[in-house]
Amino acid sequence: MELAQSTAAHPPDTAPTAARQRVVIVGGGFGGLKLAQDLVDDPVDITLVDRRNFHTFQPLLYQVATAMLDPGAIARSLRAILQDHDNVAVRLATVVGVDWERSEVRTAEDDRIPFDVLVLATGAVTSHYGIPGVEEHAFPLKSTDEALRLRSHVLACFEQADADPSLLDEGVLTFVVVGGGPTGVELAGALTELIGRVLRKDFPRVDVERARVVLVEATDHLLGGFGRSSQDNAYQTLRSRGVEVRLGEKVIGASATGVDLGHEIITTRTLVWTAGVRANPLADALGLAQTAGGRIVVDDDLSVPGRPEVYVIGDLAAGRDADGGLHPQMAGVAQQGAVHVARQLRRRREGLGPTPFEYKNKGIMATIGRNAAVVEVPGGLRFRGRLAWVMWLALHLQRLVGFRNRWEVLSQWAWNYVSYDRTARLMVDAADDLPPRDDGSGSPPRPVPPVPRTRSEV
Amino acid sequence: MELAQSTAAHPPDTAPTAARQRVVIVGGGFGGLKLAQDLVDDPVDITLVDRRNFHTFQPLLYQVATAMLDPGAIARSLRAILQDHDNVAVRLATVVGVDWERSEVRTAEDDRIPFDVLVLATGAVTSHYGIPGVEEHAFPLKSTDEALRLRSHVLACFEQADADPSLLDEGVLTFVVVGGGPTGVELAGALTELIGRVLRKDFPRVDVERARVVLVEATDHLLGGFGRSSQDNAYQTLRSRGVEVRLGEKVIGASATGVDLGHEIITTRTLVWTAGVRANPLADALGLAQTAGGRIVVDDDLSVPGRPEVYVIGDLAAGRDADGGLHPQMAGVAQQGAVHVARQLRRRREGLGPTPFEYKNKGIMATIGRNAAVVEVPGGLRFRGRLAWVMWLALHLQRLVGFRNRWEVLSQWAWNYVSYDRTARLMVDAADDLPPRDDGSGSPPRPVPPVPRTRSEV
Repeated sequence: MELAQSTAAHPPDTAPTAARQRVVIVGGGFGGLKLAQDLVDDPVDITLVDRRNFHTFQPLLYQVATAMLDPGAIARSLRAILQDHDNVAVRLATVVGVDWERSEVRTAEDDRIPFDVLVLATGAVTSHYGIPGVEEHAFPLKSTDEALRLRSHVLACFEQADADPSLLDEGVLTFVVVGGGPTGVELAGALTELIGRVLRKDFPRVDVERARVVLVEATDHLLGGFGRSSQDNAYQTLRSRGVEVRLGEKVIGASATGVDLGHEIITTRTLVWTAGVRANPLADALGLAQTAGGRIVVDDDLSVPGRPEVYVIGDLAAGRDADGGLHPQMAGVAQQGAVHVARQLRRRREGLGPTPFEYKNKGIMATIGRNAAVVEVPGGLRFRGRLAWVMWLALHLQRLVGFRNRWEVLSQWAWNYVSYDRTARLMVDAADDLPPRDDGSGSPPRPVPPVPRTRSEV
Repeated sequence: MELAQSTAAHPPDTAPTAARQRVVIVGGGFGGLKLAQDLVDDPVDITLVDRRNFHTFQPLLYQVATAMLDPGAIARSLRAILQDHDNVAVRLATVVGVDWERSEVRTAEDDRIPFDVLVLATGAVTSHYGIPGVEEHAFPLKSTDEALRLRSHVLACFEQADADPSLLDEGVLTFVVVGGGPTGVELAGALTELIGRVLRKDFPRVDVERARVVLVEATDHLLGGFGRSSQDNAYQTLRSRGVEVRLGEKVIGASATGVDLGHEIITTRTLVWTAGVRANPLADALGLAQTAGGRIVVDDDLSVPGRPEVYVIGDLAAGRDADGGLHPQMAGVAQQGAVHVARQLRRRREGLGPTPFEYKNKGIMATIGRNAAVVEVPGGLRFRGRLAWVMWLALHLQRLVGFRNRWEVLSQWAWNYVSYDRTARLMVDAADDLPPRDDGSGSPPRPVPPVPRTRSEV
């Protein structure tokens, strides 16, 4: 193929040489990506393996689910991010295990990737704690796909209410969010705004006053880990904006038509589960010691006991504070763990021993809605309301990977703020959700041929 | 639900009164949407029915397929567009037929929508002309879903070539586009740029020189309907940019591994079919007279013969020029048809008779790639190269529905132009395309639970 206008010279062959350490990183989330970026100038050959070809900025998934952002605004191709570095190879593959004898990672595609150093950073998945019906009926919110499905479902509920108002009695406009952590609080607040500001206008024939957003939390407070005043502020703000906050209530079961709280069944078709995570199932397949929640036990330098060439970072690792408490499963812990591991690899090359990983809490924050957030900085400084909200916006913009994503998110946020609009309220796969055509009368219409799926196996 | 900060008053009830004409428009494409917008100030009650909840700007689908634009940039919620008008109701439903006796539209959801005036505007679907294997193996390009599938597939082909270079011999990087009309020309040009400018850098280990983009056209020229000089310019430009243009070649069959041209089989996993359309299958279910291609026969005022209360506009209608030729199936014809039908409805209310529809060709254009396009304006003016390309950009920006989409498209185009980047190269459903985890050794990993699909029926 002649590519007359190409501007890129063919890059040099980057096959690993025997002298260079082969570092294999499994997972392109906050931890894995940060580590790859930190190592690009080191004399190592890096392979970053992920089952998706893009990095997802998970803290903003709830905004995709509530039509505030396009999914493309919070995702970026891993190859694009790492394009300019010859010592990084990106591999699209699902890791299913490790051959410890041969020091090789095994993939679902039946490939093997040899390593000198292995860093596991596959994060966490939604945990349903085995509560009956939850896995089958709840919407998780850990990926862009899941966020898009929730968005389409919420819009579909309003379409159903528009077509058949009697469905309001069946809870078609009741949205139950389980889990009072930042994701649950942010989603409940954003759903209320979507309904009250946008869908109310989109669906003038629907009695939107009957829509309910219910936030269910098992403990007696929202935002565990925050101070009492932030927790109370979140509670009051959500309540004042119309969210029914149920503290001290536990889900004991779920079905297609409702959520069972024991003393009460909430009739609903929408249960969003943000109440818990457990380690990525890969952790269970490695033959390594695990804690509750499946997290892999690590030494204080984040290496696996007895395997100094293997590190675990982020949500997958059972790292502990000085007082023995497990590290929170947050982006900041993963990113600091990545920086720590990069330093350990350099120390080893210099013949130095390991140092312990110390997570430094640089602050926690959660947004509740327009002009409302809570921020807590170490040292006791606390912010709330509009100032906290602006801090939240600025920090999340700054943390997005790549100037392009920052620009796109800023642009969409500005539009939403000024116009009270939500640009992204498209139902993807809406046509697929429709029942098959069969009207039982007259000659049947010629069916539209199904669209072929991608034929490739990656 | 209390929505303390809502800014919208509850809109007045807009149930049709007996005195107002009920106009039902089927299809929210260029024709149907334009008609609804044209009628908002008229004393009629409009119901716009579509199977999707958004309008798609089809002329830019090829840019979604080649990672230039996010799908959200070229789609906009129909309810959002028509939100401010009390006499327009949007219905999400698939129309499957018409009960002519009772003057009701029948939907797949088993609803009936009564009408006084019916306007059919469901457009066209891909036609494979019954060529063996094409329907099963070709990628169509008529919806955002289809564009995203093609985008993911192209990226998956490069991932496959990266993981296993021997697949190059099986044509994994050969992309065959069939159809030399504007869509085929635009897609072939954009694919070449995506490969040569972006994927070349993303996949440094892949021998991108062996990638091929093949454009197959059955006649002896590209861009049928354009003048000879524009056709030749498109041919020369595509060739100079590395596209293999095959004129006078017909596809006689397709399989999962190749495209059969009769005298030659091109080994490929990617066949994109832009070679033909036929009327939406709804046309076949109505008991109305049709022409070749399924288009519905209309009188010269675009009404159905013998049914003066039924109009057909856009690609679905077999409207004819003064010299008896069928109107081209283009956005401009659909939009002018909508304006014409709105005028006919006003004339009827004033007791006036019908007037014939006359399509005015305001010009045709096609883009070939960066800084290259052809534009033909009636009267003989022709433009090509960079000037034509700027005209193409400006016109398409202007025609996008809504300021927000214009802003987003302009922003992404500007970024792509300046950076030689393509922002949207994410593989959606990439994980779903991966083969199931089964490595046949050791303890099987605990499978990740499947994500529940939307449970709703719309």
